[in-house]
Amino acid sequence: VGLDPFFWFMDLAGVFVFGISGAIAAERKAMDVYGSFTLAIVTALGGGMIRDVLLGRTPAAAFGDPLYLGIASLGGLSALVFSGQLSRLHFSLRYMDALGLGIFTVLGTTISLDQGISLPGAILLGILSGTGGGMLRDVLSQEVPLVLQKEIYAVAALVGAGLNGGLLALGVSVNVSAGVGAGVIFLLRILSLRFDWHLPRAGK
Amino acid sequence: VGLDPFFWFMDLAGVFVFGISGAIAAERKAMDVYGSFTLAIVTALGGGMIRDVLLGRTPAAAFGDPLYLGIASLGGLSALVFSGQLSRLHFSLRYMDALGLGIFTVLGTTISLDQGISLPGAILLGILSGTGGGMLRDVLSQEVPLVLQKEIYAVAALVGAGLNGGLLALGVSVNVSAGVGAGVIFLLRILSLRFDWHLPRAGK
Amino acid sequence: VGLDPFFWFMDLAGVFVFGISGAIAAERKAMDVYGSFTLAIVTALGGGMIRDVLLGRTPAAAFGDPLYLGIASLGGLSALVFSGQLSRLHFSLRYMDALGLGIFTVLGTTISLDQGISLPGAILLGILSGTGGGMLRDVLSQEVPLVLQKEIYAVAALVGAGLNGGLLALGVSVNVSAGVGAGVIFLLRILSLRFDWHLPRAGK
Repeated sequence: VGLDPFFWFMDLAGVFVFGISGAIAAERKAMDVYGSFTLAIVTALGGGMIRDVLLGRTPAAAFGDPLYLGIASLGGLSALVFSGQLSRLHFSLRYMDALGLGIFTVLGTTISLDQGISLPGAILLGILSGTGGGMLRDVLSQEVPLVLQKEIYAVAALVGAGLNGGLLALGVSVNVSAGVGAGVIFLLRILSLRFDWHLPRAGK
Repeated sequence: VGLDPFFWFMDLAGVFVFGISGAIAAERKAMDVYGSFTLAIVTALGGGMIRDVLLGRTPAAAFGDPLYLGIASLGGLSALVFSGQLSRLHFSLRYMDALGLGIFTVLGTTISLDQGISLPGAILLGILSGTGGGMLRDVLSQEVPLVLQKEIYAVAALVGAGLNGGLLALGVSVNVSAGVGAGVIFLLRILSLRFDWHLPRAGK
Repeated sequence: VGLDPFFWFMDLAGVFVFGISGAIAAERKAMDVYGSFTLAIVTALGGGMIRDVLLGRTPAAAFGDPLYLGIASLGGLSALVFSGQLSRLHFSLRYMDALGLGIFTVLGTTISLDQGISLPGAILLGILSGTGGGMLRDVLSQEVPLVLQKEIYAVAALVGAGLNGGLLALGVSVNVSAGVGAGVIFLLRILSLRFDWHLPRAGK
C-alpha cells in the first residue's frame, strides 16, 4: 500500500523504538553486541514479516526497502551507545512503544483488509503485526511473552484493530480510521500503565 | 481442497479441541484472559498456518474463513467458562485431542500431495500440520514441546501420514485413505496412553 | 538456482552435519528417538525453510526434493548410532559445522540477490539461512540461542555474506564470490574457536 507520509514516518518511528526495546532485552540477558543487533532487528521487523508471510506478500517488505533494516539497526545502536541514559528515558520509551504498537496494529489490519481478508481475520493479523516482534524477542531471550501474561497490551491492540476495521467497513477514510484506531491503542496502553489496569487471570 | 462434509466437520472439531488445550496451557501458566485466547487460537490454527506458509497457499486458510477463528475462540471460551469441570473431562479430552491430531495430519498430507509435493515431503508436512500448533503452544508457554519428549504422539502421526500417503499412491480414494490414516493415528495414540508405551531415549 | 555440482555437494554436506548437531542437542535433553529425528530435520532444513518462506519461493525447497529430507534423517541416524564415538569426533564436527554455516550463508545471500533483494536485505537473509536452523533447534530444546550469546558465529556469517554480496556487485563470478565468502566464514569461525575470540557484551 502507498502509505500516507505521516503514517510512513510513524511506521519508521515504530521500527526505531522496537529496535531499542530488542537491544535492551539482549543487554538484560548479557548477550554480546551481535545478539543485541539481532534482537533489535527481529523485534523491529518480526511483526511485519509474520504479517507478510501469512498474507503471501513476499518477499517480505523488510527485505524490499533497506531503510527498514537501517532504522532497526539504528535503534539497536542507540540502545548500545546510550544504555546508561536509557533507564532515565524509561517513561518516554513506554510512550513510544505504545505508539509503535498502535501504528503496527492498524497498518496490519488495513493492509490485510486491502488484500481481501475478512474483518475478523484482518483484526487477528493486525494484532500479530503489532505484537509479533515482541513475542519473537521474548521467545528468543527465554521469557514467557509479556503480551500473554498480565498487562493490557494486546487487548488494546484488539480494541484499536476492531475500531479501525469497523470504521473502514462503514466507509470512513483510511487516514481517519487508522488514526482513531492507533490513538485508542496508544491511550488504552498508557492509561493501563498509569492506573495499573489488569485483565483477570484465567480460571479465577 | 473441497473437503468432504464429514472431514470438514471433523476439521472444525479438531480446531475446537486444540483451542481448549491452548487455553488450558495458558491457565496453568497463570496467564490472563487474553493470553488464554491467544494460546487457544495459536494452538488451534498454528499447525495449518505453518502448512499453508510452507506450501505457499496464502493468505493462510485460517484468515480466509472467519469460521475457523470463531471455533478456535469458542474452544478458548469453553475452557475459561468450564475450567472447573475440565479436570473431570480429562479423559475424553485426550480422546478428542487424539482425533484432532489424526485429522490435521491426514489433511496436511493430503493437501500437500494435492499440491504436487513428493511423498516424504507430504508426510513431513502432515506431521507439522498435526503437531505444529501444540509446538507453538509449548514454546510460547515456556515448555519443552511435549512431542519432542517422551510420548507416542508424533510417531503416531508419522505412521498415519505414511499410511494415508501410501494408500493414495496405490490409487485408493482419498476418503478411505484419510479415514484409515486418521483412525490409525487415533488408535495408536489412545493405546499408547492406556498401556504407557514409550519410545526409547536417544543414546541409551 | 542451478547449483554448481561442488556447491550442491557442499549443501548436502551442510544438511548432514546440521542434522547431526540437532540429534546431539536432542540427546542432551533426554528426548526420545522421534525427538532426535525431529530436531535433526528442523536444524538441517530450518534455515532454508525460513529463507524460502520470506522470499516467497514456495513450496519450500526442502519439500521439493526428498534428497534433503533423506540426508537430514541420515545425519540424525548417524548421531543415534555413533553417539558413543561422537565425543571423540568433537573437533572435526566443529570444522564441519563451520563449513555448513559458510555454505548456507552464501547460498542464502546469493539466492536472495538472484531474486532481486537489495544487498543489505540479502545479507540479512543469508545470515538467517546460515543460523536459522540452529536457532530453531535451541528454541525447541529450551536454550537461549547460542548465536545470540557469546561466540563469533553469526558475525562470521555477516562478514562472509557481505564479502560474497560485495564481490557479486563488483561483477566477480558467483563461484568465486561464494567460495571466498564461505571460506572466510569457515576461517573466522575456526580461528575464533582456537584463539577464544569473543565479542564484547552489550552495555559494558
